[in-house]
Amino acid sequence: MANGIQIHSDGGKDLVLATGRAHPELAAEVAQFLDIGLLPVEARDFANSETYVRFGESVRGTDLFILQSHTSPVNQWLMEQLIMIDAAKRASAKRITAVVPFMAYARQDKKSRGREPISARLVCDLLCRAGADRIMSIDLHTPQIQGFFDGPVDHLFAQPVLIDYVRTRMPAGNITVVSPDAGRIRVAEQWALELGGGPLAFVHKTRDVTRANVSHANRVVGDVDGRDCVLVDDLIDTAGTITEAIKVVLEAGAKSVIVAATHGVLSPPAAERLASSGACEVVVTNTLPLSEDQKFPGLTQLSIAEHLARAIKAVFEDQSVTAVFDGQMI
Amino acid sequence: MANGIQIHSDGGKDLVLATGRAHPELAAEVAQFLDIGLLPVEARDFANSETYVRFGESVRGTDLFILQSHTSPVNQWLMEQLIMIDAAKRASAKRITAVVPFMAYARQDKKSRGREPISARLVCDLLCRAGADRIMSIDLHTPQIQGFFDGPVDHLFAQPVLIDYVRTRMPAGNITVVSPDAGRIRVAEQWALELGGGPLAFVHKTRDVTRANVSHANRVVGDVDGRDCVLVDDLIDTAGTITEAIKVVLEAGAKSVIVAATHGVLSPPAAERLASSGACEVVVTNTLPLSEDQKFPGLTQLSIAEHLARAIKAVFEDQSVTAVFDGQMI
Amino acid sequence: MANGIQIHSDGGKDLVLATGRAHPELAAEVAQFLDIGLLPVEARDFANSETYVRFGESVRGTDLFILQSHTSPVNQWLMEQLIMIDAAKRASAKRITAVVPFMAYARQDKKSRGREPISARLVCDLLCRAGADRIMSIDLHTPQIQGFFDGPVDHLFAQPVLIDYVRTRMPAGNITVVSPDAGRIRVAEQWALELGGGPLAFVHKTRDVTRANVSHANRVVGDVDGRDCVLVDDLIDTAGTITEAIKVVLEAGAKSVIVAATHGVLSPPAAERLASSGACEVVVTNTLPLSEDQKFPGLTQLSIAEHLARAIKAVFEDQSVTAVFDGQMI
Amino acid sequence: MANGIQIHSDGGKDLVLATGRAHPELAAEVAQFLDIGLLPVEARDFANSETYVRFGESVRGTDLFILQSHTSPVNQWLMEQLIMIDAAKRASAKRITAVVPFMAYARQDKKSRGREPISARLVCDLLCRAGADRIMSIDLHTPQIQGFFDGPVDHLFAQPVLIDYVRTRMPAGNITVVSPDAGRIRVAEQWALELGGGPLAFVHKTRDVTRANVSHANRVVGDVDGRDCVLVDDLIDTAGTITEAIKVVLEAGAKSVIVAATHGVLSPPAAERLASSGACEVVVTNTLPLSEDQKFPGLTQLSIAEHLARAIKAVFEDQSVTAVFDGQMI
Amino acid sequence: MANGIQIHSDGGKDLVLATGRAHPELAAEVAQFLDIGLLPVEARDFANSETYVRFGESVRGTDLFILQSHTSPVNQWLMEQLIMIDAAKRASAKRITAVVPFMAYARQDKKSRGREPISARLVCDLLCRAGADRIMSIDLHTPQIQGFFDGPVDHLFAQPVLIDYVRTRMPAGNITVVSPDAGRIRVAEQWALELGGGPLAFVHKTRDVTRANVSHANRVVGDVDGRDCVLVDDLIDTAGTITEAIKVVLEAGAKSVIVAATHGVLSPPAAERLASSGACEVVVTNTLPLSEDQKFPGLTQLSIAEHLARAIKAVFEDQSVTAVFDGQMI
Amino acid sequence: MANGIQIHSDGGKDLVLATGRAHPELAAEVAQFLDIGLLPVEARDFANSETYVRFGESVRGTDLFILQSHTSPVNQWLMEQLIMIDAAKRASAKRITAVVPFMAYARQDKKSRGREPISARLVCDLLCRAGADRIMSIDLHTPQIQGFFDGPVDHLFAQPVLIDYVRTRMPAGNITVVSPDAGRIRVAEQWALELGGGPLAFVHKTRDVTRANVSHANRVVGDVDGRDCVLVDDLIDTAGTITEAIKVVLEAGAKSVIVAATHGVLSPPAAERLASSGACEVVVTNTLPLSEDQKFPGLTQLSIAEHLARAIKAVFEDQSVTAVFDGQMI
Repeated sequence: MANGIQIHSDGGKDLVLATGRAHPELAAEVAQFLDIGLLPVEARDFANSETYVRFGESVRGTDLFILQSHTSPVNQWLMEQLIMIDAAKRASAKRITAVVPFMAYARQDKKSRGREPISARLVCDLLCRAGADRIMSIDLHTPQIQGFFDGPVDHLFAQPVLIDYVRTRMPAGNITVVSPDAGRIRVAEQWALELGGGPLAFVHKTRDVTRANVSHANRVVGDVDGRDCVLVDDLIDTAGTITEAIKVVLEAGAKSVIVAATHGVLSPPAAERLASSGACEVVVTNTLPLSEDQKFPGLTQLSIAEHLARAIKAVFEDQSVTAVFDGQMI
Repeated sequence: MANGIQIHSDGGKDLVLATGRAHPELAAEVAQFLDIGLLPVEARDFANSETYVRFGESVRGTDLFILQSHTSPVNQWLMEQLIMIDAAKRASAKRITAVVPFMAYARQDKKSRGREPISARLVCDLLCRAGADRIMSIDLHTPQIQGFFDGPVDHLFAQPVLIDYVRTRMPAGNITVVSPDAGRIRVAEQWALELGGGPLAFVHKTRDVTRANVSHANRVVGDVDGRDCVLVDDLIDTAGTITEAIKVVLEAGAKSVIVAATHGVLSPPAAERLASSGACEVVVTNTLPLSEDQKFPGLTQLSIAEHLARAIKAVFEDQSVTAVFDGQMI
Repeated sequence: MANGIQIHSDGGKDLVLATGRAHPELAAEVAQFLDIGLLPVEARDFANSETYVRFGESVRGTDLFILQSHTSPVNQWLMEQLIMIDAAKRASAKRITAVVPFMAYARQDKKSRGREPISARLVCDLLCRAGADRIMSIDLHTPQIQGFFDGPVDHLFAQPVLIDYVRTRMPAGNITVVSPDAGRIRVAEQWALELGGGPLAFVHKTRDVTRANVSHANRVVGDVDGRDCVLVDDLIDTAGTITEAIKVVLEAGAKSVIVAATHGVLSPPAAERLASSGACEVVVTNTLPLSEDQKFPGLTQLSIAEHLARAIKAVFEDQSVTAVFDGQMI
Repeated sequence: MANGIQIHSDGGKDLVLATGRAHPELAAEVAQFLDIGLLPVEARDFANSETYVRFGESVRGTDLFILQSHTSPVNQWLMEQLIMIDAAKRASAKRITAVVPFMAYARQDKKSRGREPISARLVCDLLCRAGADRIMSIDLHTPQIQGFFDGPVDHLFAQPVLIDYVRTRMPAGNITVVSPDAGRIRVAEQWALELGGGPLAFVHKTRDVTRANVSHANRVVGDVDGRDCVLVDDLIDTAGTITEAIKVVLEAGAKSVIVAATHGVLSPPAAERLASSGACEVVVTNTLPLSEDQKFPGLTQLSIAEHLARAIKAVFEDQSVTAVFDGQMI
Repeated sequence: MANGIQIHSDGGKDLVLATGRAHPELAAEVAQFLDIGLLPVEARDFANSETYVRFGESVRGTDLFILQSHTSPVNQWLMEQLIMIDAAKRASAKRITAVVPFMAYARQDKKSRGREPISARLVCDLLCRAGADRIMSIDLHTPQIQGFFDGPVDHLFAQPVLIDYVRTRMPAGNITVVSPDAGRIRVAEQWALELGGGPLAFVHKTRDVTRANVSHANRVVGDVDGRDCVLVDDLIDTAGTITEAIKVVLEAGAKSVIVAATHGVLSPPAAERLASSGACEVVVTNTLPLSEDQKFPGLTQLSIAEHLARAIKAVFEDQSVTAVFDGQMI
Repeated sequence: MANGIQIHSDGGKDLVLATGRAHPELAAEVAQFLDIGLLPVEARDFANSETYVRFGESVRGTDLFILQSHTSPVNQWLMEQLIMIDAAKRASAKRITAVVPFMAYARQDKKSRGREPISARLVCDLLCRAGADRIMSIDLHTPQIQGFFDGPVDHLFAQPVLIDYVRTRMPAGNITVVSPDAGRIRVAEQWALELGGGPLAFVHKTRDVTRANVSHANRVVGDVDGRDCVLVDDLIDTAGTITEAIKVVLEAGAKSVIVAATHGVLSPPAAERLASSGACEVVVTNTLPLSEDQKFPGLTQLSIAEHLARAIKAVFEDQSVTAVFDGQMI
């Protein structure tokens, strides 16, 4: 090209982090690990409950991460995130990543019966339509959800954070990992592997696997007698399944029970149930905020903020997220 | 084509009407005018506030109308409608019309300042992405919103219903139509035209048009002294503007004041304000449901159900909606 | 509309069925149940292996079903189906349903590790891009795959066909349903339920669930001693897992073993392995064709052609597929 | 589905034909063959040359054909057609076919050099984006243009009309078909085939094929001495190539020359050139309108209106267009 | 990533400015402010009026701004811009901004009646489909048009340029800002605000606001007697409304009248009307070119080239356009 | 933007080259010219012939070129390329270029008859849908195929490589360029031009151009007696046409014949035919791999690897590909 018809610029790019109102504490913590401030955002509701959002500073040309965890009321926070993405797109952000530590509707990932929606796909479609170029999430309920989004999904795992903590609470040699449900044994297998190959067990709910016609008789399969048991799952919602599992495991002679899950949804009456469940500790991460009502003695909330910050930085710098997390992320 | 390689069927089509939980009374009324029952729908919220929807009967091949008015909490009801549309699409409905008597976010139809979203466009995009083929709505805040949807929008007007009623309450010869705001005089002009060419007036809020430096001095322009005044607008939200206008019109010598608007959003403290405003009657339609807290003496709610039913039938039967409503719809 | 500016026609529609070269026997059988002939199709490969397809008769305005089961070589048959869909779209078919009794790549439905594709989503995207309006398939490997397609998926189940047959081969009262793999217990649960609540069992491969550090020691969990066992899965590929499971079940005292699976992929050395596995019968359906090399004594292939024909007819006639199959299809 | 939740209608459909202002005579003629009136359309230009269009009657649910031939000024008429399509889409036409007897920009179908547009693809994209479901055109400059549109293209041929006429003007036994250009011999081959296998010839322009370094020496290849020659092409624009060819053919001893082409673009100075070219007759069809300035003695314009009418009717009735035209259309 | 499998480059980017043939003078002026030359572009029309465009130098990887103002004939220049965008996309420009100082069809932004198009949305869709990533425009007729484009729109205001000039022509203390139309009072309000809070007035056309049945009696509302009046609007087309307003304002005793508008469309007979209107000056910007026929004594054309240049530079450098223009742009 | 809310990075970008299994030798050669290693790729087929691909290192943020030439079995290699593109998209590659030296299905670029697909458009659509941002290919069968892809296509020409070689084999002064087919004379014209304006000739197959009713009598048009002839085409598949042409040219007195074509598809029985054709040499490039069965005495394969490498580098560095290749590429 001849001289004189263009202006050259060196390029470069800027990482900016914004948050909705669903879980600002987590965003603030992530920003701290990144050593930056959060983008100023004006977000409020009009009298008739419509959401209003405006960014306080320019996001033109930035690599913008919009963090919103889908805590209750999920429709409110999902719409707020969609509106923020729309504003960012129209304000010329260069790339928009929807950071969704806990993604709502992930359990509605298939048609169990005719005439049902597949709401998890819908959520991915809405994020895409609003303008998100990519998604970052933690411990999606089923990994197939990555395929619901037509673009890159950075899928992080909270397991290392949970396992590191559990190791400090129980003697490694006596741990049995227990799945509360036959359908989620694979998660327990990964835990057992990480913990050095300890024994596995699981609880059958709603039906005895080995004898006919005896429904709803929960039962532990595997050796838990005298063992320190870790009950693991991706999320705890109303805690019905998990408290039933704790009961059965203790009845089967477990020495102690710790519950570990990534997402502490903890809808009522989870706090009540867990407080009186017999578990000595319930460990979740801070992918979701916890109100005072959701807390109870024995509840421990670990932070995944540093993990998120490292993943965001890696994405920004085009480094391998897989490598940064030593194979523990996809 | 040779005989024998196909099965022939006569075709034909079926109109089905479904409703979300935002305003089932209106849907029931519309169904009654259509002389059909509503599609059975199972809709509820999970403990963590995620919405679940399932149709109770097959919608395969139907011309399905999904009615949801975006009352508060608007994000909740908008998401429910999107989920219903997704379910209908996956259940092989042939055509899906989102019937939205009052569309949320219609006032966020432009960027007033930099870094704002255009949420009205976003809502249209989300309806389209979920699977809506067309939209039916009533008195959109600005007609440009029709252009936000990439498909047909049936835009209905509630004015005839409101005018017919007002005619029964005031002697035609003494009516002055008043706009509460300089920006919405055109609506008042249409009213005056329909009422036989009576006089117009309007209220300047926030600034005196004719004298400098006198801000916030509201003032009536036009002849209201001794007249029966009808204050008209598309919606009443918190009623701040409208009650101020009532006050000024009465101070200017109006004999009586009726307020007429299509959408009774009536967010607090609208009921209080209007109850003590001096207006003898406030007339809205039932595009939005009204709770007991929103009601007050002097409030009249007219039904647009028959209008909606006629428009739905015309759309189904490929008749001109414009013709059915004698030019009053677009 | 005034008289004279339009030509009216009564509408009506025609069902037409076409097949690629992957599994013409199945298509012929389906056509027979529909009592029609197959659409004449010219399909062949050029010297350099490019595929050529042309329809022998007009498909203009038809409700066209294009059946192709993704047997080996799967890329060949998938591309042929895409080319047929493209031809149908350009020839003005009104609606195109890709009938895929066995969908290739369904097992690649997630990223197990970083930098992998999600090929099952890709296949759905390619079918959609070529012009398919909808998909009909049987026993998808995971139900989440329905969410990979942005449109209706008719998902059929072959279980009723398999169960009806098994009932004729074993005394109902002595059956135990066995899952060859902990991850697929839910399928076995459905079988047990259909068989009247008989006992369940499953095989742990690669790792003993109840004792640590004993890897690869396969073991039956549940009561199989003296029982007639049915080993169930969605597909049998090289049969490594299933033959190992047969061995373990027989070692645990099973009286007899029948293997039942929807899709007989039967890649080498499946025939050899199963022939000498000790199972008295291996039952699959004809979602995939079987060459002579794939067959062996004790192999039974049941036809799902009538099921497919009924589903296709229901889709064409806008009847509820769920209802037609008594709740057994989604 | 239970009784009572739906309204049933018999379906049926209506063909409606509308035209822009580019070539209303052709549309009127087509309508006459269809035995219907044209849809009333209000189309005009505002003072600043913006185009305004409105349909005079409802097109809701119709199978609408919007005819516009891209005569000069082509950008004007293309935009008018796009605006009509937009209006039809928003007015709920069920299916929209852009009927484009002569498609503008068809000669810009590739990048001959770097940094050129592919305007023919752009035109197809614009028609699609505005809302056209399908295209009907006649004798596209290259058949690859069908592949530029992502949907059905009904591609008609005017050759039968032209050939039938030529047969009446020349004794069949003495005809030689001549291509004016080496690149378009295949068209001439089809003519010769239809005329019963008569001899072919062609003119080399810009370069002598058989001797080096003699540029621009046009020369007839093939036997034209004493023959009645038909020079054939898809279109005649400024007629530079064709008049040069006529001259050379006559110099080579041709007894008489008729020129036949589908599209009479006839940009100045085509009329002058052809009038004095020595050809006894120039035959084109009425895919494009001809002004008085474009006409000259010896020009014959044949009508393809009946052909268009038959194709439109076949498309509407889902009959094979290929069959209707006895293999002469694709 | 290991060494050796990639080539690294520093990135960087280049701003390039190209113009169509609609208003090259403006583009040249903008380029001068940017201190660069314009991209060489070959643009011409073929004999049949098809447009041909080719870029004279590579635009690979550039941040390309394609300036075209939609002056008459608007369809011609719009298509030329679409073709330039297509060429740029295929020539691998990295980002394409359609710079449209005056956007055609902006007044067709809604359906005023049934069966009309929404041509302003169509124009945005066409620009997007051709390949434009973003739009830059000045004083769109309604701000909702920003929502018609699915991407960033940089919306600039010419008001500061106009106001700065008017200040030099009239004593600030005696100015009254007048709107020619009740529907556009908000623009006048912004002017009055910027001019330090001076008085406002407006003209009612077509109907007397305060008395019934007296149509078409234009009338000034507000105090203009003895004042220096500025009549403001976004555009002047045929100048019918504005000349009527000038007349009424002068009749009401105005001391002098200046007309100020961003876009001088000035279709005939605007020049005649304005020349004899009684206004002492008509001020427009150069968003549109003016032919000699459009000019008249008393017409002043101000340049917005520097504004455009600053906005283009800010967009290129990812600086806040809002900030650059001190809040005057969105 | 205030300090503190963003992290700045310098940008920069990385070129990475990956290859499928179709033609790894070519990719290796290209990488050598680029002086880099190939991206490690794990690619294999499962037992049932499904393809599996995984990248061995991160491609996050890279400018990734995925090379696959569509040799037989073409469906296999096309699908592998699509799967690689999907993996790259999901692994956050910044830009993906499908490098397709020989593109399959390019000859199916139009509907020759009704109810045919346009497979060349389909291939472009599939590449786009999978995630390719751009295509690089060599000597597409028709240049219109560039218009089938909705994005940039870098279209390279192998002619310079072939011509440089031919010049070393024949005395320039005695060369006649011969087209084997009337439809491809333009390619021969370009050759003749490059060779300094030597004479042209071509072979009529299937029909004698100058005499009627003598079909299938091939015949050379042009002067080949005593000349060194170069027969040129874009590809040689089964070599039927070309061997027939060689025979006719030799019969017409040619002194010697060399065949030159870009793509050596060489499907059986091409090797046999060409070996005994009488041509002294057959020259192709290595856009396609050649097995031992495809080779024969007299076959010469030239490398276009350096050309590809230079084009890839130019694309990466945003240099004009046109310029790099001195006008020989588009």
